[in-house]
Amino acid sequence: MAVYTRVDDSQLEKFLTAYDVGTAVNFKGIAEGVENSNYFLDTQDKRYILTLYEKRVNISDLPFFLSLMDHFANLGLPSARPIRARNGEILQELCGRAAALIAFVPGLSRNIPSIEDCGAMGAMLARAHKAALSFPMSRDNDLSLAGWQKLATQCQGADECKTGLTSTINDEITYLTKHWPVGKNLRSGVIHADFFPDNILFSNNGEISGLIDFYFSCNDFFIYDLAICLNAWCFDANHTFQSDKANAFIAAYQSHTPLTKVEIETLPLMLRGAAIRFLLTRTFDWLNKVEGALVTVKDPTEYYKKLAFHQQNPDAINL
Amino acid sequence: MAVYTRVDDSQLEKFLTAYDVGTAVNFKGIAEGVENSNYFLDTQDKRYILTLYEKRVNISDLPFFLSLMDHFANLGLPSARPIRARNGEILQELCGRAAALIAFVPGLSRNIPSIEDCGAMGAMLARAHKAALSFPMSRDNDLSLAGWQKLATQCQGADECKTGLTSTINDEITYLTKHWPVGKNLRSGVIHADFFPDNILFSNNGEISGLIDFYFSCNDFFIYDLAICLNAWCFDANHTFQSDKANAFIAAYQSHTPLTKVEIETLPLMLRGAAIRFLLTRTFDWLNKVEGALVTVKDPTEYYKKLAFHQQNPDAINL
Repeated sequence: MAVYTRVDDSQLEKFLTAYDVGTAVNFKGIAEGVENSNYFLDTQDKRYILTLYEKRVNISDLPFFLSLMDHFANLGLPSARPIRARNGEILQELCGRAAALIAFVPGLSRNIPSIEDCGAMGAMLARAHKAALSFPMSRDNDLSLAGWQKLATQCQGADECKTGLTSTINDEITYLTKHWPVGKNLRSGVIHADFFPDNILFSNNGEISGLIDFYFSCNDFFIYDLAICLNAWCFDANHTFQSDKANAFIAAYQSHTPLTKVEIETLPLMLRGAAIRFLLTRTFDWLNKVEGALVTVKDPTEYYKKLAFHQQNPDAINL
Repeated sequence: MAVYTRVDDSQLEKFLTAYDVGTAVNFKGIAEGVENSNYFLDTQDKRYILTLYEKRVNISDLPFFLSLMDHFANLGLPSARPIRARNGEILQELCGRAAALIAFVPGLSRNIPSIEDCGAMGAMLARAHKAALSFPMSRDNDLSLAGWQKLATQCQGADECKTGLTSTINDEITYLTKHWPVGKNLRSGVIHADFFPDNILFSNNGEISGLIDFYFSCNDFFIYDLAICLNAWCFDANHTFQSDKANAFIAAYQSHTPLTKVEIETLPLMLRGAAIRFLLTRTFDWLNKVEGALVTVKDPTEYYKKLAFHQQNPDAINL
């Protein structure tokens, strides 16, 4: 969470001449985004986020992410909207990086979402899935089963993080490889794939005012996206499952788009898949962390506990 | 440049109940301050910076820094102003850290200040020195001669950074120890001691709109504070001295408060002292840098070149 590329006042001034947004009044680096540099920018009348895409981001994916944000905003979802330069393009270059200017979305993220917040997010997720159906682009999910299998081979030292973690990962990959629904009739389309509470902003009236950080969005099962959310929103600070939150989340989702029979049947498996996905990336980051670096490595054991819960409680969510 | 302490929405909400500022609408960590965690905060009607003081800051110094900001703001200088809580205190506690809420000051800092910018800053520095005369608190400068002598002993491996740097440092410390004006009739008082272009914000009309980062302010010679500024503002990107900028800076300073004869005589020495001060801290940080850490260590050789310039050109500024 830091600014990797420094943009100075003259570089900013030159960059803004490509846009119809006026001149800069305030400009500060913000400590968001593990992979990109983000600046908070005020011009005379509007507020923006300026994002510079750093090396870990695949530049060829950016048109997908940014177009999806634009598509959602056009359909009335509170997505951060990329701003087109005068030449009609969203992507520009700044300090040798691909860069985009994005409309600021207001609001505060919730650390521990309430039951009401879970309901609001369940409804928003359903709206996002419906809106995604009219989005014409697609992008493979490189963090689905094949990606997990590859990550698992890179996490064979996971016991260094927690005793027994390596065999837990290996056993779960074996199980998911055997049971992952290939060819089943599950609804799919473009999913956000990272709708953690961090990436959802709420206004003071309790409504969702902002959807941000689309840089994992891809094509996959909608029920998998729901499972990612349930794991992220419906456990408490001790990583204990909160069935009232899950019920509120799913009920609100279903009020917009009812789950199919096969989605309901597959949900327990999806919750395990959604748990191993974050367990694997967090374990990988933990094993490859740089001593003394300021980037906080997220605790892998959170998702170890969540995976164990779903392994032991396939009937936790009763629909 | 990062956020070290994470403040979540519920912690923020509780913290703000101590103030008469309303409730939070936007809240984002900003990538400023090497030593503290800073957040950008909007309430319904105003904008603030929330600062949490991390371990490297001496808590007992905070009342001095914050009172000085308040004093300057009260006298009409565009200093960021600390906000008092309902109990009348500026310092509060948040997430186990001393914390202060500070009014946001708008503007953009200049990477390479123009001649006009140097004039504006020269005038502002004189105003700050005049305003400091009515400030009742004091704080020793732990980064003056005694501090440099101590830092120099910790930089005896400086040749690892640049060949010959250790002897340059040692020779300069010997020279400054011999000539540093102790007991001379130099005007002194509270100085900012870190008025780098980073810490000065300009509005679109070219006026200075904000003075920030008072966390090195202390008592010392006013002419030493001027020398710090001349070194920071009046060299170009290749660290070549710009006499037109220095002349504009000093002329504007003198239009508010003329330099005394002894100040003019001492300026060449002050410029060397102001150069060794940043050469030493940057060398120390370079020698103690953490591999892979995100904090960018500033280039010590910039101040090596500036020191060499002043050693070789004692008459560079002709007053």
